[in-house]
Amino acid sequence: MPILENAAPTLSLDQISKMQKYWNATNYLTVGQIYLQDNPLLKEPLKPEHIKPRLLGHWGTSTGLSFIYVHMNRLIKEKNADMIYLAGPGHGGPAILANVYLEGTYSEIYPDISQDEEGMRKLFRQFSSPGGVPSHVSVPTPGSIHEGGELGYVLSHAFGAVFDNPDLIAVAVVGDGEAETAPLEGAWKSIKFLNPARDGAVLPILHLNGYKISGPTVLGRDWDENIQKLLEGHGYEVFFVEGEDPTRVHQSFAQTLDACYEKIRNYQKDARTNGFKERPHWPAIVLRTPKGWTGPKVVDGIKIEGTFRSHQVPVSGVKTNLAHLKILEDWMHTYKPEECFDKKGRLVPELAEMAPKGDRRMGANPHANGGKLRVELKVPSYYDYAMKIDKPATQFRESTRPLGEMMRDIYKQNADQHNFRLFCPDETNSNRLGAIFEVENRCSVERVISDDDHVSPDGRVMEVLSEHLCQGWLEGMLLTGRHGVFATYEAFAMVSDSMTVQHSKWLQESIRLPWRAPISSLNILLTSTCWRNDHNGFSHQGPGLIDTVLSKKGTVARIYLPPDSNCLLSIADHCFKSRNYVNLIVIDKQNHLQYLNMDDAVDHCNRGLSTWDWASNTESLEPDVVLACAGDVPTLETLAAAHWLRHHIPELKVRVVNVVDLMTLYPPYFHPHGMSEEIFVSHFTEDKPVVFAFHGYQRAIHELIHGRTDTSRFHVRGFLEEGTTTTPFDMVVLNGMSRYHLAIEAMKRATRVQNLVPPLIEECNDILTRHHTYVRNHLEDMAEVRDWTWTD
Amino acid sequence: MPILENAAPTLSLDQISKMQKYWNATNYLTVGQIYLQDNPLLKEPLKPEHIKPRLLGHWGTSTGLSFIYVHMNRLIKEKNADMIYLAGPGHGGPAILANVYLEGTYSEIYPDISQDEEGMRKLFRQFSSPGGVPSHVSVPTPGSIHEGGELGYVLSHAFGAVFDNPDLIAVAVVGDGEAETAPLEGAWKSIKFLNPARDGAVLPILHLNGYKISGPTVLGRDWDENIQKLLEGHGYEVFFVEGEDPTRVHQSFAQTLDACYEKIRNYQKDARTNGFKERPHWPAIVLRTPKGWTGPKVVDGIKIEGTFRSHQVPVSGVKTNLAHLKILEDWMHTYKPEECFDKKGRLVPELAEMAPKGDRRMGANPHANGGKLRVELKVPSYYDYAMKIDKPATQFRESTRPLGEMMRDIYKQNADQHNFRLFCPDETNSNRLGAIFEVENRCSVERVISDDDHVSPDGRVMEVLSEHLCQGWLEGMLLTGRHGVFATYEAFAMVSDSMTVQHSKWLQESIRLPWRAPISSLNILLTSTCWRNDHNGFSHQGPGLIDTVLSKKGTVARIYLPPDSNCLLSIADHCFKSRNYVNLIVIDKQNHLQYLNMDDAVDHCNRGLSTWDWASNTESLEPDVVLACAGDVPTLETLAAAHWLRHHIPELKVRVVNVVDLMTLYPPYFHPHGMSEEIFVSHFTEDKPVVFAFHGYQRAIHELIHGRTDTSRFHVRGFLEEGTTTTPFDMVVLNGMSRYHLAIEAMKRATRVQNLVPPLIEECNDILTRHHTYVRNHLEDMAEVRDWTWTD
Repeated sequence: MPILENAAPTLSLDQISKMQKYWNATNYLTVGQIYLQDNPLLKEPLKPEHIKPRLLGHWGTSTGLSFIYVHMNRLIKEKNADMIYLAGPGHGGPAILANVYLEGTYSEIYPDISQDEEGMRKLFRQFSSPGGVPSHVSVPTPGSIHEGGELGYVLSHAFGAVFDNPDLIAVAVVGDGEAETAPLEGAWKSIKFLNPARDGAVLPILHLNGYKISGPTVLGRDWDENIQKLLEGHGYEVFFVEGEDPTRVHQSFAQTLDACYEKIRNYQKDARTNGFKERPHWPAIVLRTPKGWTGPKVVDGIKIEGTFRSHQVPVSGVKTNLAHLKILEDWMHTYKPEECFDKKGRLVPELAEMAPKGDRRMGANPHANGGKLRVELKVPSYYDYAMKIDKPATQFRESTRPLGEMMRDIYKQNADQHNFRLFCPDETNSNRLGAIFEVENRCSVERVISDDDHVSPDGRVMEVLSEHLCQGWLEGMLLTGRHGVFATYEAFAMVSDSMTVQHSKWLQESIRLPWRAPISSLNILLTSTCWRNDHNGFSHQGPGLIDTVLSKKGTVARIYLPPDSNCLLSIADHCFKSRNYVNLIVIDKQNHLQYLNMDDAVDHCNRGLSTWDWASNTESLEPDVVLACAGDVPTLETLAAAHWLRHHIPELKVRVVNVVDLMTLYPPYFHPHGMSEEIFVSHFTEDKPVVFAFHGYQRAIHELIHGRTDTSRFHVRGFLEEGTTTTPFDMVVLNGMSRYHLAIEAMKRATRVQNLVPPLIEECNDILTRHHTYVRNHLEDMAEVRDWTWTD
Repeated sequence: MPILENAAPTLSLDQISKMQKYWNATNYLTVGQIYLQDNPLLKEPLKPEHIKPRLLGHWGTSTGLSFIYVHMNRLIKEKNADMIYLAGPGHGGPAILANVYLEGTYSEIYPDISQDEEGMRKLFRQFSSPGGVPSHVSVPTPGSIHEGGELGYVLSHAFGAVFDNPDLIAVAVVGDGEAETAPLEGAWKSIKFLNPARDGAVLPILHLNGYKISGPTVLGRDWDENIQKLLEGHGYEVFFVEGEDPTRVHQSFAQTLDACYEKIRNYQKDARTNGFKERPHWPAIVLRTPKGWTGPKVVDGIKIEGTFRSHQVPVSGVKTNLAHLKILEDWMHTYKPEECFDKKGRLVPELAEMAPKGDRRMGANPHANGGKLRVELKVPSYYDYAMKIDKPATQFRESTRPLGEMMRDIYKQNADQHNFRLFCPDETNSNRLGAIFEVENRCSVERVISDDDHVSPDGRVMEVLSEHLCQGWLEGMLLTGRHGVFATYEAFAMVSDSMTVQHSKWLQESIRLPWRAPISSLNILLTSTCWRNDHNGFSHQGPGLIDTVLSKKGTVARIYLPPDSNCLLSIADHCFKSRNYVNLIVIDKQNHLQYLNMDDAVDHCNRGLSTWDWASNTESLEPDVVLACAGDVPTLETLAAAHWLRHHIPELKVRVVNVVDLMTLYPPYFHPHGMSEEIFVSHFTEDKPVVFAFHGYQRAIHELIHGRTDTSRFHVRGFLEEGTTTTPFDMVVLNGMSRYHLAIEAMKRATRVQNLVPPLIEECNDILTRHHTYVRNHLEDMAEVRDWTWTD
């Protein structure tokens, strides 16, 4: 167990003394933020009116976070190291705020929070206050690329940040609460995908203080021996630092931090000099310190420091309980603010010089404001991959395959920057994106054997069967100014949909902050969709991510349902180049009919929806019924329905409208893509029935179109949670979205031709009955539906 | 490293020979299911017409799953052991189907699939076929409590199954693909919560075959030494079995399985005899066998067995490629079907006797059809916890606190059965459910120290900071016939919402199968809601689970938004007693106004929604405007708006409608709780404006009410993704759902009084401006909103 107790001291007594003072300053500011609205330097005795009316904040983890920050400052200065800090225990917001304030970053960004008494008062007062700053490490916190609210993603974000950032070290502090989450446990293995020759490094610090809100934590209560095995099993070399006495812990932590830094740089140097040979045993630190360290030891006879009782506000009721007020005042004085700050409230020079300078300050490191470093992605012309459509709906193609070719060339054209990666839990080939392997490999720094296909430590195609890890890595890359795509199963995109929610929230906040430079969008590509998981069954059938993204703000959320490959290329081009969005793209990977030539596809995607005249028989007339569709399979069924109708009932005027940008359906006041009512009516008419075939859960369309003229005339078919392992056509039948269901609905709704329709409805029902029998007898779809194409 | 190579042989040569034959039979049936629609016994040479038109299935994992099954059969018979089998690699469906068919369970449940040639033909033909059975281990598979589709939950389900099932051993096979998922990695630690004195045991078998669809797996490629450390770090004793030669692997696996069984029973015996002392080092097996074991070694010169190429259908195109057809035929003959089955297609007696009998057969074990063992939960009368309401909206209470008392008594009254547990990632006390600790403790089998509060190895309150683990454990308990509640943060319920989706799918399927006895509902209680995470900030604010559950089938999905504690008690009573539902209950834990006496609450909850006459001033008249609300905070704001309106504009006739069962808003054809149009109109009128304050994302209401009379008159306010750390009232202001926003909306919409409203709208806006200034100056809400109660 590599504890460095007997190594030569790293810190002089003078250094320890100064670091202790600096740490005192951070802790003082942390307590101040939780409690005070006035009298920030305690120039007068503490009175109830100095106390905030609502005491909010999480003390328990904060001093440990500051302790680490202070030590990283020393290391950065000594080594001129390029380091960022990811605080997993995001509730420790006031600690990180204290540090970025002391190093000067905060006041540069927010000049109102100046480095003087008035600025300190405002710093205290704004914390967790209306119109102030949130209680977590979050978007407004300089130097942060990680919101600690939901917990679980600090390691995956950290690894994503250092991919292809060879000099960067991301220190990821993992709280022992967070360490219990599944996404965190699943992220330790990220080092199996980290190449010391080209990537930076992550230094995980597992910070054990023993408790969650009120119960013990699993790892906090475990023996060092077990923790060591666990992390060694994941591939790390483990260093333990433990204690309550700050002086001793200062020395021991500094020794350990230096040792880890040397190991990291040596591994990197070796791989960069001699080539990659094997995965390093990257260092990881386990830091055990008391919960609420340096806080009140006992309040009202009850032990606080070192117990769960110091999790949030360790001494409460200070505005009304004078004894408690005294405890707070005495506690704050233990940090000796008069030693830390001058009369004006400015950090004294001997402490101020301990922080790194300029961009080396962790609050100012440009990697943590990735848009500043972002290099535009070179995206080849999508015309190079276009399919020529001789006649719409007569040619087939696996719609995602040309996107694989486009991404292959993106890898190639951006090879000098190495700023693009594809992340894929269910595998690239299966998603028909395999053209990538002409120029790239799967990434693994483990053994490669002869049976392997395109696996290499130099690969940049990231395949791991974990949606959490894929999405977390990609988010880390995006937040540090790079680009990428997360391609996954539609149903299992739900596994990480809470990450999509949290990333949306991050973007929404960052847009409001002018100092946060825009980052590349989070592009989520769903290529194995509910309608064509006929071979995988019901568990693989679920279009729920659409609903999740629909609920997000129009400022960040985008949903695209390209009907064919040319539309997908146009959409992908837009998404690759866009910034600050969550782009959800849903299109199936199987062989599908293709509809639009590239010029038409571009025009269609720019509009977001179009009336497809070639599929309509309205000429210039108002239709009797509008057949609308969104998504590839719904488009196929709609076109087949339109085709059937025009051949069986030519008198019926049918218009086909295809929606590719789902957000266009929203009213313009609700989403920036929302179309005007005039355009809406030009497609959907004012009063004619609309039969809408939708890729997702049907009622979501009603959520979108609320506010439009007479929405009761919209009859939506979509995924009804009906499915199993069956045939493609049987899937649309099971969900009532087949061409015959759509045709029946249209005929029932089209009032002008009611006298004609009864036998035709019967005919449709007959076909459905015939299908039912056929598919159960032959175990495949009838050729007439399977091979259907458009004919005149 | 405890490999048992040198131990005395467990199996005689005769036993090995018979087990090999039985295994051959399972593998033969597996291949048959993937390929054949006829000629099941190969009585004639294989021809193209015997081959299914679509070849679906996953061969790669199947033989390993059967190998384990055959060995468990031997152990069960020898020990009369009570064991169930959870197949993590759910794609191995045909393997488990083969085994339950051979042991006779399948034909008992599905008599049409008889144990003869015709039954075998049907077994083959139905697999992955339209109208047949899905390709996964799934609900229709006897003996299954675990659908392997999404991957990640096999360990948490297994541990949930054995909690308080002292004699049960759940063997959980973890695929090396699945082992990469975060939920799986987060579930190894479940043994930290397993008490050998009262709980059964889980025997994990990590089955490494090296590959996913096309890439290597992380653990499959890792060294034994690392895997051993990893699992030892989690607390297990690790046993390795590895090989390709079946005879050798039979012997070695049998030895290992026996050793593990002895260890499990010894740990249990010791704890049950001498009391619990410390957490055992429970055994876990690592089984390395080739992917696609016993399948074609080489096809068209390319290596198949042992590589990723055997993942799905290892030899394709057999219907058209006669050389491939021959490979299939030769392959099937290697299993010597003539040795396994008699002429009639029945398993030969010497093999048939190898399966356990009756309920000991894993396909027939009643634990895997939990409804059969389910004992009704004794639920105390909710009147015992009721609050007497002297006057509505004048008394405050933490609405969830009495539910804690009710659950305390549920723990007490069901102590003889021990069939109820609470699962809670963010902690019981924080959710105001702490009354439970009067009779129960938090569960942990790790060290307990003096600072701990109600922590014990005997505890049955399950707190671990992992939504995945909490929900997985609970699902495991429910599926084996017990009861429980999952209480968590509203925003972070999204972390495991894909599990909610998958469990809904499971229930929906099981309802269709008469042999699956109903199980208790999955009760999800969200007590820290978006509106009152004013202290935690934006990451903690998100009502998205409502949208996820809304998309699920009406046969299983329920959403309740009780406005106060008496309604919560009534709803909870119903949910505790209900079966086969997913019940989502959303109510905040903070101090809130209370409205209904218990009799009224029961009546209200039974109806699902009511007009609250006491808050309306319509007398018997038709209202000018309806103020509707769903959720506690929306109800508060709505009542305050109604109150303001009746005092400022008495001429305006306002009706207040409260919705507690959200699904009542659906039309009756869409959800069984959906109210008739007549009842809908009786509350919401036919044509009057409705201002609806909704707990969740506003547009979801439009999804619900589509199909109702003139939905354009509904004006919904809800959560708009606006939030931060602020005050409670500022949260509703930020989202435009404050009483003043509602009042303004009502005044604008109520056409009859337009002449009166301009100055009143101005007054509302003035108050909002005053609030904005006040809250930023005083850091708390104005007393007039904070302390508002109903006055006449």
